[in-house]
Amino acid sequence: MASEATQRFAPSSPRVAVAGATGFAGALAAELLWRHPGFELAGVTGRSEVGRTLQELYPRYRVPLRIAELDPEELEGLDAAVVAYPHAAAAPTVGMLLERGLRVVDLSADFRLRSLASYERWYGTHPRPELLELAAYGLPELHREAIAGAAIVANPGCYPTASVLALAPLARAGLIADVVIDAKQGISGAGRAFDETTHLSMAGENILPYKVAAHRHTPEIEEQLAYLDPSRPDVRVQFQATLVPLDQGEQAACYVTPTRPVGEQELAELYSGAYDAEPFVEVAASPPGTREVLATNFCRIFAAADSHTGKVLVFSSIDNLWKGTSSQAVQNLNLMFGKPETDGL
Amino acid sequence: MASEATQRFAPSSPRVAVAGATGFAGALAAELLWRHPGFELAGVTGRSEVGRTLQELYPRYRVPLRIAELDPEELEGLDAAVVAYPHAAAAPTVGMLLERGLRVVDLSADFRLRSLASYERWYGTHPRPELLELAAYGLPELHREAIAGAAIVANPGCYPTASVLALAPLARAGLIADVVIDAKQGISGAGRAFDETTHLSMAGENILPYKVAAHRHTPEIEEQLAYLDPSRPDVRVQFQATLVPLDQGEQAACYVTPTRPVGEQELAELYSGAYDAEPFVEVAASPPGTREVLATNFCRIFAAADSHTGKVLVFSSIDNLWKGTSSQAVQNLNLMFGKPETDGL
Amino acid sequence: MASEATQRFAPSSPRVAVAGATGFAGALAAELLWRHPGFELAGVTGRSEVGRTLQELYPRYRVPLRIAELDPEELEGLDAAVVAYPHAAAAPTVGMLLERGLRVVDLSADFRLRSLASYERWYGTHPRPELLELAAYGLPELHREAIAGAAIVANPGCYPTASVLALAPLARAGLIADVVIDAKQGISGAGRAFDETTHLSMAGENILPYKVAAHRHTPEIEEQLAYLDPSRPDVRVQFQATLVPLDQGEQAACYVTPTRPVGEQELAELYSGAYDAEPFVEVAASPPGTREVLATNFCRIFAAADSHTGKVLVFSSIDNLWKGTSSQAVQNLNLMFGKPETDGL
Amino acid sequence: MASEATQRFAPSSPRVAVAGATGFAGALAAELLWRHPGFELAGVTGRSEVGRTLQELYPRYRVPLRIAELDPEELEGLDAAVVAYPHAAAAPTVGMLLERGLRVVDLSADFRLRSLASYERWYGTHPRPELLELAAYGLPELHREAIAGAAIVANPGCYPTASVLALAPLARAGLIADVVIDAKQGISGAGRAFDETTHLSMAGENILPYKVAAHRHTPEIEEQLAYLDPSRPDVRVQFQATLVPLDQGEQAACYVTPTRPVGEQELAELYSGAYDAEPFVEVAASPPGTREVLATNFCRIFAAADSHTGKVLVFSSIDNLWKGTSSQAVQNLNLMFGKPETDGL
Repeated sequence: MASEATQRFAPSSPRVAVAGATGFAGALAAELLWRHPGFELAGVTGRSEVGRTLQELYPRYRVPLRIAELDPEELEGLDAAVVAYPHAAAAPTVGMLLERGLRVVDLSADFRLRSLASYERWYGTHPRPELLELAAYGLPELHREAIAGAAIVANPGCYPTASVLALAPLARAGLIADVVIDAKQGISGAGRAFDETTHLSMAGENILPYKVAAHRHTPEIEEQLAYLDPSRPDVRVQFQATLVPLDQGEQAACYVTPTRPVGEQELAELYSGAYDAEPFVEVAASPPGTREVLATNFCRIFAAADSHTGKVLVFSSIDNLWKGTSSQAVQNLNLMFGKPETDGL
Repeated sequence: MASEATQRFAPSSPRVAVAGATGFAGALAAELLWRHPGFELAGVTGRSEVGRTLQELYPRYRVPLRIAELDPEELEGLDAAVVAYPHAAAAPTVGMLLERGLRVVDLSADFRLRSLASYERWYGTHPRPELLELAAYGLPELHREAIAGAAIVANPGCYPTASVLALAPLARAGLIADVVIDAKQGISGAGRAFDETTHLSMAGENILPYKVAAHRHTPEIEEQLAYLDPSRPDVRVQFQATLVPLDQGEQAACYVTPTRPVGEQELAELYSGAYDAEPFVEVAASPPGTREVLATNFCRIFAAADSHTGKVLVFSSIDNLWKGTSSQAVQNLNLMFGKPETDGL
Repeated sequence: MASEATQRFAPSSPRVAVAGATGFAGALAAELLWRHPGFELAGVTGRSEVGRTLQELYPRYRVPLRIAELDPEELEGLDAAVVAYPHAAAAPTVGMLLERGLRVVDLSADFRLRSLASYERWYGTHPRPELLELAAYGLPELHREAIAGAAIVANPGCYPTASVLALAPLARAGLIADVVIDAKQGISGAGRAFDETTHLSMAGENILPYKVAAHRHTPEIEEQLAYLDPSRPDVRVQFQATLVPLDQGEQAACYVTPTRPVGEQELAELYSGAYDAEPFVEVAASPPGTREVLATNFCRIFAAADSHTGKVLVFSSIDNLWKGTSSQAVQNLNLMFGKPETDGL
Repeated sequence: MASEATQRFAPSSPRVAVAGATGFAGALAAELLWRHPGFELAGVTGRSEVGRTLQELYPRYRVPLRIAELDPEELEGLDAAVVAYPHAAAAPTVGMLLERGLRVVDLSADFRLRSLASYERWYGTHPRPELLELAAYGLPELHREAIAGAAIVANPGCYPTASVLALAPLARAGLIADVVIDAKQGISGAGRAFDETTHLSMAGENILPYKVAAHRHTPEIEEQLAYLDPSRPDVRVQFQATLVPLDQGEQAACYVTPTRPVGEQELAELYSGAYDAEPFVEVAASPPGTREVLATNFCRIFAAADSHTGKVLVFSSIDNLWKGTSSQAVQNLNLMFGKPETDGL
């Protein structure tokens, strides 16, 4: 086959690189940008597999670009980068890119938390704390305007994406007195890690909770809920994640003790009001299976009041690699460069 | 191969039949009894597949007996039966078997609830309410003595098995102020149903909550918790079940708001005290994946206190077809006939 | 969310309907046409689910059109249809559509075989044999020109697609003396059938050969090989299909006894010559896993000579629902309406 | 729970150790011996995880013994060992054990091939070639008597087990002119390797042929076929293995070109004659899914004549970890120590 060596995109499209394109998240971001009519995928970098094409590594992704090392001298003419590094490794690179005039969507945790103290409690010393003020939290449904103008967009964690979208209408209405979030995720959430949690003969036929009472996504969710309901700055969230044997898919089940009784009618209005105009959030009529959003940028949400307990239940499904990570990065790039938010998605 | 046509069992072993042996639960009960050194599997019945051997239907189960229709005239000499019928269909058959002198382990919901009102709210009219008083709730870890002497043993639902074992030490200590149970289960929990919930191309790559705010296992769990903590007869449990794409395996994640602060040390003592002498409940040192109990009668439990929220988290894993159903039925039969509880398991 | 109620397509695009859009194949064809910039998806029909939107049935497919019954009176202005009916049911509908001026891509077996005798041996009486001469065999890599001008394009079976693409270079060179094809396929190949072959607790952890020595795709493969190598009109193919527990993916392993010794160099040239200019067939450097073509219209092929046995081995991977069925239908529509073959794919 | 610290076995049972108990094969061998009424599991060794119990590593296996390093000084009183090492690493240990008076079932390839030349072509230098003459090939259905008296029993590879059992009746009758074996296997066949072939997000939704035209199990199969049909000492087998996304299960599909026409009746008699008296081989009436033998020591075989091509097709299913490896080792131990062949299985 003649390798599809040229990308089709509109003239004078912004030029975007993906740093760390060999992992699941970076590779999908590159693929989505490659297919995007309004961006030029200008380069893919990695610390391993240098010289191979991305397509050799992920044949179903049709990206013929060769993986290169990230060279600060070769960033001339680039407009933006998606950085797919682990936390702590990301911030210095983000800083370097900013200094060379690029705008950045960072997939790591380094710029997600507004509170430096919170970051340091969960992740250790922050490599570039002075950059925090340049970052917007990249959940478009909550921070669309800040994202459009930000130098750094901190792409949310996949769990916070599903959880905060699920809870935002209740939080904004001051309705959350207490909340338990039980989130399930497929194995791609562990990335290319090769260990007991990803081996098919160990992860298959298994349901495995992890990081009990200590998940790093908790403060991120709490910060966003406090932002939505300033009257409860110290909201505490019970968050628990569990691995289940599928590839891509994530669901947050939220059990909310409301501050006052909430009925089905009010719930329906809250969610409809919050999301009817959103292009990528759908209010479902029944609990959404994750398969309903597989390989899409959609989040589907179902909320119900339980008359037996008085609690409010909200189920939120996303594809952890798409809306949970890489397609949300593209949604953010669309906003940052003034493109229609749904382009290429 | 010469069909393994004869079962090895001790002389004068009780003779047990399985009624409804063509479904997943009945077939496994038959297989476990066939392998059991202390029971004679005297017959297998079904409303379909009559005349075929059970092995033809489930080749990996080595039971060469032919499926017959249940004939009340041919029960002479039987000591017990496992009844694997749907609810409402079970009770009349259980009654008939009792009248012919058999003791019964019933896998349906018909005799699980002490409260007739509760049964009728969830399941409709009870076909044989007068038999309720003859039934013991077949969770050996809670009702060992009652089971030993009962005419009917109501085998618990799989969700209540995992949930009640997880919560019993806390309930008995009066520590449960509020509880959310998020339970995940593999597809075998849906039985031989052929529909969207079991089709591999629909159930695979899916995480699907079902029966939101309306699961029939809720009253069963509440009855047992009220039994364990008589001071809270009206305990309300938030129970939610979710299907995940595996075959056999079930996990209950319980999020407990305690009536007073509980620390790790007290938790460890509560669970150790409750289960150290139990042959089939293990207190684990980390969250137990369901694979750890695959194809066993074990329940593995991990409890932790979350200092961030003050909640107590308990994770309980079973194999829904084994401890959740069929091997628990054998454990109950062992108790009913004075055999060591672990025999054949 | 505001339902994405309008499709974007170029003005005066051909208008295409999908008949039988409720099954896996028809639904995906509709989704691909909906996303296609050069066709208007003008309607979706089904014999069940009438009145629901396709999106309600397959939420991850974003097609908001409502399923209607196929009404011959409402075909005015349509240019083409994809017919996704079972064999024998398809031909009468295809005939009716032709009479109303539509061109048709038929996904059934009704027009795949040139030989009526062969059809009737495998499928029974043909409902509209007089239409056979209007049909082209819809494997673009072999019949591009015929497809472009045909009234009916018989979309190949998924197994013949993978098998014939694998074997074509050898057949054309007269190199196939004998061939065994061992094809594996995921469960989506069984469609929305609800039975033992699709239940996750039965199809999972299973490897299941089916239709031993009697697969209907055999004559289709043999006809194409005879077309490619007219010197062997009576070629006999040993074809066997096996279900394996995944959703989408298919692989044909072909074991060829060559008519004369064939070396690696000659093999490489044969395959490179056949496929270097093909947009959707790739010659791989190692055996292609089906995941490499998941959700794409690509076929990836690897050929090797075994010096130990003298045989030639060819492995060919496709996504059975895409290149095996629905995206190949779109590729055919592109050819039929003079569009670039890769548009929308 | 009180750890089930004592094993039940008959007095003066042979004492057996498992060397290399931390991998999938060794761990299952240990579990099966632990449950066995006629052997004492006297120790489990490993080169990693020393000091942990086997149960900690594999909780569903109930073996409370601690993993120790293999100490030649502590073998006093042992009767036998199962050695689960990689090839080349196994032979020196086997030799050492023999010198201390133990009999050995070796799970590696080191003693499977009678021909040293063949071994060295596929595996390199043999560490202890002088021991080859002490070894019997551990396929009980073919070498029962030799196994009973051997010092070393070379447990067959899983592919040869399925393949040779499938082909033996035809080979013995001199009917195999040519044969293609297409074998599929679940991911547990790769063992505890952590890499691209076992990661659920890579191995899932995949069908992956490997070691094309170069599988080490080929000479093992050929040696056994030559043994069965001495008239064809140079038989060449086309063997190909493919990974499919399940855990345990393996199937060999054998496509035989017979030396003369063979009909269904003759086939039925050949297979019935060969296996009716075998306790662990079953002739099935239809192609056996691997699920039919999951977690059993059975091999199920279906043979059919294809009148279209004249070929004979044989499908053979085993559980690769059981009959393919660890339970077959127990079957061999039963034979070596004069126990009923089915004990503990």
